Amino acid sequence: MNKILLLGAGRSATVLIDYLLSNATIHNWQLAIGDVSVEHLTQKLALYSQARAFVFDVQNEEQRRTEIGQAHVVISMLPALFHPLVAQTCLELGQHLVTASYVPSQIKEMHEEAKAKRLTFLMECGLDPGIDHMSAMRIIHQIQGQGGNITSFKSFTGGLMAPESENNPWHYKFTWNPRNVILAGQGTAKYKQDGAYKYIPYPQLFRRTETFLVEGFGYFDGYANRDSLGYVEPYGLQNIQTMLRGTLRRPGYCQAWHVLVQLGLTDDSYSLEDSAHMTYWELVESCLPTAPKQGMSLKEQVAAYVGLNPEAEEMQLIEWTGLFEEVPIGLDKATPAQALEKLLVPKWKLSPGDKDMIVMLHQFEYELNGAQKKLTSSLVVLGDDEVHTAMAKTVGLPVGIAVKHLLLGRLQTKGVVVPLQAELYQPILEELEQNGIRFVEKGE
Amino acid sequence: MNKILLLGAGRSATVLIDYLLSNATIHNWQLAIGDVSVEHLTQKLALYSQARAFVFDVQNEEQRRTEIGQAHVVISMLPALFHPLVAQTCLELGQHLVTASYVPSQIKEMHEEAKAKRLTFLMECGLDPGIDHMSAMRIIHQIQGQGGNITSFKSFTGGLMAPESENNPWHYKFTWNPRNVILAGQGTAKYKQDGAYKYIPYPQLFRRTETFLVEGFGYFDGYANRDSLGYVEPYGLQNIQTMLRGTLRRPGYCQAWHVLVQLGLTDDSYSLEDSAHMTYWELVESCLPTAPKQGMSLKEQVAAYVGLNPEAEEMQLIEWTGLFEEVPIGLDKATPAQALEKLLVPKWKLSPGDKDMIVMLHQFEYELNGAQKKLTSSLVVLGDDEVHTAMAKTVGLPVGIAVKHLLLGRLQTKGVVVPLQAELYQPILEELEQNGIRFVEKGE
Repeated sequence: MNKILLLGAGRSATVLIDYLLSNATIHNWQLAIGDVSVEHLTQKLALYSQARAFVFDVQNEEQRRTEIGQAHVVISMLPALFHPLVAQTCLELGQHLVTASYVPSQIKEMHEEAKAKRLTFLMECGLDPGIDHMSAMRIIHQIQGQGGNITSFKSFTGGLMAPESENNPWHYKFTWNPRNVILAGQGTAKYKQDGAYKYIPYPQLFRRTETFLVEGFGYFDGYANRDSLGYVEPYGLQNIQTMLRGTLRRPGYCQAWHVLVQLGLTDDSYSLEDSAHMTYWELVESCLPTAPKQGMSLKEQVAAYVGLNPEAEEMQLIEWTGLFEEVPIGLDKATPAQALEKLLVPKWKLSPGDKDMIVMLHQFEYELNGAQKKLTSSLVVLGDDEVHTAMAKTVGLPVGIAVKHLLLGRLQTKGVVVPLQAELYQPILEELEQNGIRFVEKGE
Repeated sequence: MNKILLLGAGRSATVLIDYLLSNATIHNWQLAIGDVSVEHLTQKLALYSQARAFVFDVQNEEQRRTEIGQAHVVISMLPALFHPLVAQTCLELGQHLVTASYVPSQIKEMHEEAKAKRLTFLMECGLDPGIDHMSAMRIIHQIQGQGGNITSFKSFTGGLMAPESENNPWHYKFTWNPRNVILAGQGTAKYKQDGAYKYIPYPQLFRRTETFLVEGFGYFDGYANRDSLGYVEPYGLQNIQTMLRGTLRRPGYCQAWHVLVQLGLTDDSYSLEDSAHMTYWELVESCLPTAPKQGMSLKEQVAAYVGLNPEAEEMQLIEWTGLFEEVPIGLDKATPAQALEKLLVPKWKLSPGDKDMIVMLHQFEYELNGAQKKLTSSLVVLGDDEVHTAMAKTVGLPVGIAVKHLLLGRLQTKGVVVPLQAELYQPILEELEQNGIRFVEKGE
């Protein structure tokens, strides 16, 4: 009897747990789920005799070794910083590992040893990274198989709200770790365009957007991810002229976020003096050059500072957050980013019945038999409700499907792997399609 | 016979060496000078039997211990990162230490042990930090001694060029470590204004300047240093409403530098792809959103990107640097900041006969007997030539004077100290005045 250990049962794991439970019955698996808190799982697991949940502390070495030692495959949905620790224990004790996160350098270094031990450490097998790789590679292999030469590839993903639930002026709510949303894009974005390397410093990132139309769902703005260049080689696109990966938001979001960046409110590198006794109004004042001007509202001062009309859409979005109000921050030694996160978490919280939406868009340009061709591939996934979100589906299902194929002996690649090969992406994309996660392709 | 060990004999040490040599004769000192290269000292030292120069490698533990072990006082003019190593050896072997650099946390932690061993580790005893502290504290103690209450203190320093040598459009040349000039201000500037804390993120720093007039020398723009708050307590200004320390440049410099910051050209956090085969023209292109536009010069594209007229003064300053030219960077794996430094070093190099200029400005506001008062204190020091610079005088003389008083037993404060007490600043400021380094005060 195969034993699966799932570490981390947060909101992005709901659909994964359902998938594993239903397959556990069919394939006679045992499922153990460890998290810092597991009360929310009691009712769900009551129906499944082969499943158990337990309070888990990844830092507890004895517990970590005991639980991992009993499993055949370990799934880590823990915060990414814990993956090297989990992977190290898997390596020592001889267990397979599957995650939905980027490969950190410490895990990359385990490749040869994992391979020698005939272990599969399948990383980047969620949505982004995950489905983005798999769907892109299927098209890249198709075009290259026909003898085509890909000259441009742009790929954007967004975790957004379904149109019916976009009921705030930002058209955005948190369906993922809020802290990551606040800090998104920090560093320098690198990409390639028309044969030249391009760099966007963080302070310019949210003004350097590109607009896309997805039929039936309207317009989206894309901003560049930090590193688009790292995938040129793994994707087999060494001669490509344009390569850009990015993140989608609804129009208006990036422009307003750019104002927050200019003010310095996404800075996580220093603590505010006396933030425990500071209001959001005072926080914004502390970002402005001068003492409060007589007869000018804070909103007008901010607008003047960033060169906008006080009635501009950006200013309306920012006013809606409550940043201009005399509300206490209520956090000691907060960074500006932590203060901003605390403000936005209740404002951008999913309400009961809210449906989220995943949008992914690939744009290819290629030469085939002397002709210039274009191909667009897009995916839209809607959530069922605020628990069975599109985010939880698109992150959890590819992980669950990969685990199934691994346990059924259908994935033979060993070592630290990313789903770029047909052996990995083909069965996963096929089963995703059976679950309604289907790309729409349009060629020119 | 007292023995002085000077570590580091670079361009800011010329005046210090002259001072030590002339005092060595009077006071019967021995002087040992260690540096990575000492050929430039041979001729100068030939006349002094009690002085010697030797090739020194601070990382060589045996040599470090041998040389420091023979000295009574060690002066470190090495790059600041080596000071903790030198201080640790001084602590172990029981030698006094004098530097012109900020106190790093590792040296701060040596305070109790140094005190117990009756050693003086006098730090921040050059120009900035150094003369700025001493001259400010003399005024603060005067005002407070009269019963005055200081409400505002702004202090700015600039290492600039004398008017006759300001013969480039930036009115600036390097008289200090070029790399530090390129990276100046990175991080978040913190200060206090009218009772409120203020923060300036780096991307906004060079547009948030204040203009000052120094009689006889014209106008200067000041931008804020990283941490103005750290001196509120040491200066005894706990109730101050406005506290700002900063750096002076000639008008035009900060505005043009702001364009370089917006482009990302001062970024030192990542390496450019293939910089060995890149020109400066291509570097600037890589910072811009799109591929080269037909019919628009690079200068026009940059101006449009940052919202300036192509003929604006900022654009003329940048064009003068050669950034828009097809000249190879010629550095492998360069960061943008390294590429920019390589471009500017020959352009901002002192020519024979060039005279530099140090400008320091303190502005106080205080209440005395119910009246609001103002006091401005300013210092201008001109260099003699490109070797005996104002920078070398104002950094080297306070260090040399401090060493003299230390060896004559007139400085009794032990432990890690900064020249904030009268015992330290009084004799140093007096001897600086005898050397023409004299503040001009103006009250209102």
